[in-house]
Amino acid sequence: MIYLDNAATTYPKPEVVYEAMLNQMRHSGANPGRSGHKMAIEAGRVIFNTRELLAKLFNINNPMQIIFTSNATESLNLAIKGILKAGDHVITTSMEHNSVLRPIKSLEKINIENTIIQCDEVGFIDSEQIRREIKSNTKLIVMTHASNVTGTLMPIEAVGKIAKEAGIYFLVDAAQTAGVYEIDVKKHNIDLLAIPGHKGLLGPQGVGVLYIRDDLDVMHFKEGGTGSKSEELVQPEMLPDRYESGTPNTPGITGLAKGIEFIDNIGLEKIRKHEEELTQYFIDELKKIDKVTIYGPMDSKKQAAVISINIGEEDSSEIAYILDKVFNIAVRPGLHCAPYAHKTIGSFEQGTVRFSIGYFNTKEDIDASIDAINNICQQL
Amino acid sequence: MIYLDNAATTYPKPEVVYEAMLNQMRHSGANPGRSGHKMAIEAGRVIFNTRELLAKLFNINNPMQIIFTSNATESLNLAIKGILKAGDHVITTSMEHNSVLRPIKSLEKINIENTIIQCDEVGFIDSEQIRREIKSNTKLIVMTHASNVTGTLMPIEAVGKIAKEAGIYFLVDAAQTAGVYEIDVKKHNIDLLAIPGHKGLLGPQGVGVLYIRDDLDVMHFKEGGTGSKSEELVQPEMLPDRYESGTPNTPGITGLAKGIEFIDNIGLEKIRKHEEELTQYFIDELKKIDKVTIYGPMDSKKQAAVISINIGEEDSSEIAYILDKVFNIAVRPGLHCAPYAHKTIGSFEQGTVRFSIGYFNTKEDIDASIDAINNICQQL
Repeated sequence: MIYLDNAATTYPKPEVVYEAMLNQMRHSGANPGRSGHKMAIEAGRVIFNTRELLAKLFNINNPMQIIFTSNATESLNLAIKGILKAGDHVITTSMEHNSVLRPIKSLEKINIENTIIQCDEVGFIDSEQIRREIKSNTKLIVMTHASNVTGTLMPIEAVGKIAKEAGIYFLVDAAQTAGVYEIDVKKHNIDLLAIPGHKGLLGPQGVGVLYIRDDLDVMHFKEGGTGSKSEELVQPEMLPDRYESGTPNTPGITGLAKGIEFIDNIGLEKIRKHEEELTQYFIDELKKIDKVTIYGPMDSKKQAAVISINIGEEDSSEIAYILDKVFNIAVRPGLHCAPYAHKTIGSFEQGTVRFSIGYFNTKEDIDASIDAINNICQQL
Repeated sequence: MIYLDNAATTYPKPEVVYEAMLNQMRHSGANPGRSGHKMAIEAGRVIFNTRELLAKLFNINNPMQIIFTSNATESLNLAIKGILKAGDHVITTSMEHNSVLRPIKSLEKINIENTIIQCDEVGFIDSEQIRREIKSNTKLIVMTHASNVTGTLMPIEAVGKIAKEAGIYFLVDAAQTAGVYEIDVKKHNIDLLAIPGHKGLLGPQGVGVLYIRDDLDVMHFKEGGTGSKSEELVQPEMLPDRYESGTPNTPGITGLAKGIEFIDNIGLEKIRKHEEELTQYFIDELKKIDKVTIYGPMDSKKQAAVISINIGEEDSSEIAYILDKVFNIAVRPGLHCAPYAHKTIGSFEQGTVRFSIGYFNTKEDIDASIDAINNICQQL
C-alpha cells in the first residue's frame, strides 16, 4: 500500500515510537503524578520529558505552559472557548477546518461575533485583510498555518505582528505544519498554539497539545483529580494541572516524545526539503495530465505537502475508491472537514482527491500515483 | 515490584492488549471514519468493534450510544455539565472523587445547586437518604459505584430505582468497578455511565467511555471535524459523532477491546471472586496487626478490592515511601483526590495508605505486604 493520507495521520511512525510505547506500558505502566512509587515517578518523568521536547521545538520558555489534550480539535476548542467571552469578536479565515469554524460558529449563540475572511481561489490571504477587520471588541485571531485542503501556507509571522500591535491574542492551528515547518512562538508572536501529536510530530493518535502563553487566562472546561491540591474542591489554577484532570495518555505521550526526538535527529529542514521536493515533483507531473485540475498554489514553497486534485467532473470519492482498490494507493476524498475551503477554491460540490505526503514517502510513491492517475484518465 | 496501585491504573495489562496496539499502529495506523481506503476502514472497524464489546458488557442496546473520551474524568464532566442547567439541583455523596465533586462545585456559580449527602464512617449510604433529598428541581443523581478510598460498594440498584421513580437522571461513576462487578444499565436504571478504559477493563491509559441513554440531550463541549456532515458548520446531532470530534485514540481503543475480550474469556465472576478472596485475606491478616487502622467496611462482599490503612499516627506518604524503597511494593498514599471521603472516614489530615488489588495479584503479593507492614510496625 502506498500511503498518501499523511494530512489525516502520518504513517508509518518511526519504529522507536512503537517500541517506546510498548516498553512504557510493559515496564512503567503506572499512573504518573499521583502515587510516589518508582513506576509512577518514571511515568511522570516521561511526561515531563515530552513537555521539554515540545518546549524546545517551539521555543517555549516554560514546559509547564504546555497542556496535553486528546487531539488538536480539543486544543482548539479549549483555546477558542476559553478565551472568548460574550461581546467579544474573533477573526478567522475561509480556509479553516471545522475544528475552528464549528466552535466559532457555536459561540454566536452566546453573543460572540465572528468575521470569516474570504481567501483567494488558491487559499491565500493578505495579512492586511485581517488588519482591516479588527474592531474595538476583537479579542482573538485564529488561523491555520497551512490549509488541510490545498496546503496553502498562511502568513503567520505577519499576522502575529498585527495581532501584537493591536493587543489581540493570536491562536495558530499547526495541524499541518508542526514537525515540518519552523514554528517559534516568540518570533511569530503566538499566544496559543494547537498541535496534533499524530501528524508531523510522528507520535501516535490520542495526544494533542495546546501551548498557552504565560499570564493568559484561558477558562478550562474539565475539572477533576489533578494529583495536586487534592484537599480543595476547586480546580487548581497552576499549569498544566488546571487543564489536565484525570489520568493522562501516558503511552501516547511517551510515543510522542520519540517522534519529536526522531525529528530532532533528522532536522526540521531536511524533513521539509524532502517533502517540498516530492510535492513539487508531483505538481509538475500532474500539470502534464490534461484532465487533472490542481487546486492550491502549485508551488512547494507556498504550500505544505498537501495536493488536492480532481479528474474532470468525476466524483472525488469514486476516484479515491479506484486508487485504493485498483492501485493500492491511500488518499482522502471529499470535503476534508473544511467546507468553506472548498467553497473558496471552487470544489464544494465535487470535493477533491487529496494526496498528502509524509517524510517516509519516496519518489517511487509519486511515480506510482502519477501512473495511476494517467491510467484512470485513459479509462474514463 | 509488587504492584498494588490498581485503583489508579491496572498493571500489567494482558499481553494481547500490548500486541494488538502494536499491530494496529504498525499495520492499520490510519485515521478511522474519514478516508475510505483499506487501512482507514480497518481502523474504523476496530473502533466499532470496541463499541460493540462495551455494549454487550454493560447491556446497552445501541453501540452508537457509547462515546469515547480521553478518561473517566472527561466522561463525568461531559455528563454532569451536559445535563445540568441553571436552576437545577444535583444530589451526590461525600464519598465521591474530585472528578465528580469539582465539576459539581464549579456549577454553583451558574446557579446549579447541589446536595452532598454525608455517608457513614465506613462510607456507606442508605438509599433512603437520597430519596429524602429529592426536590422539585432535582435533575440528576451522581454516585460512584465503589469508593476509590475504601472500596465501599454503593447501592446503585436501589438508587437507580429511586431515580427512575422520581423521573431523575442517574449517573454512575464506575471507575472502580467496571470490568469486575456486574453493571447492567437496564437492570440498574443507569442513564449515564462513566468508565475508565485503563482500570478494571484492562485497556491502556488514554481512553475513557461515556454511555448516554437514548433520547437524552447531553450538551457537547467540543465541536470539530467528525467525518460526517462536513458541509455543515454546526456539529451533527447524531451519536457518537456529536461528542467525538477530531482524530480518536485508535491504538488505545484497540487495546481496550482486547482488555474486554480478556475479561469476557475469564468471566466477570471469576475475576471478582479472585479479587474478593485476596481482599478478605488481606483484611483478615491486617486485623491481626495492633498498630494498623483499617478503614472501610472490612468485608470483601461490601467493598471493591481497595483497602485503606494507617499505621498509628504515621504520615501515609512516609509509609508508602518505605513500602516502595525498602520492600518494592507500590501503593498510593494521601487523599486520593477524594477529600470528602477522607473527612467522612476520619483520615483527612493523615490521608491513608491505599492498597488496591487487581486480577494479576496473588496471595504471595498479599503475604509480602503483610510481612512488610509487620516489619514497619516493629521498626517504629
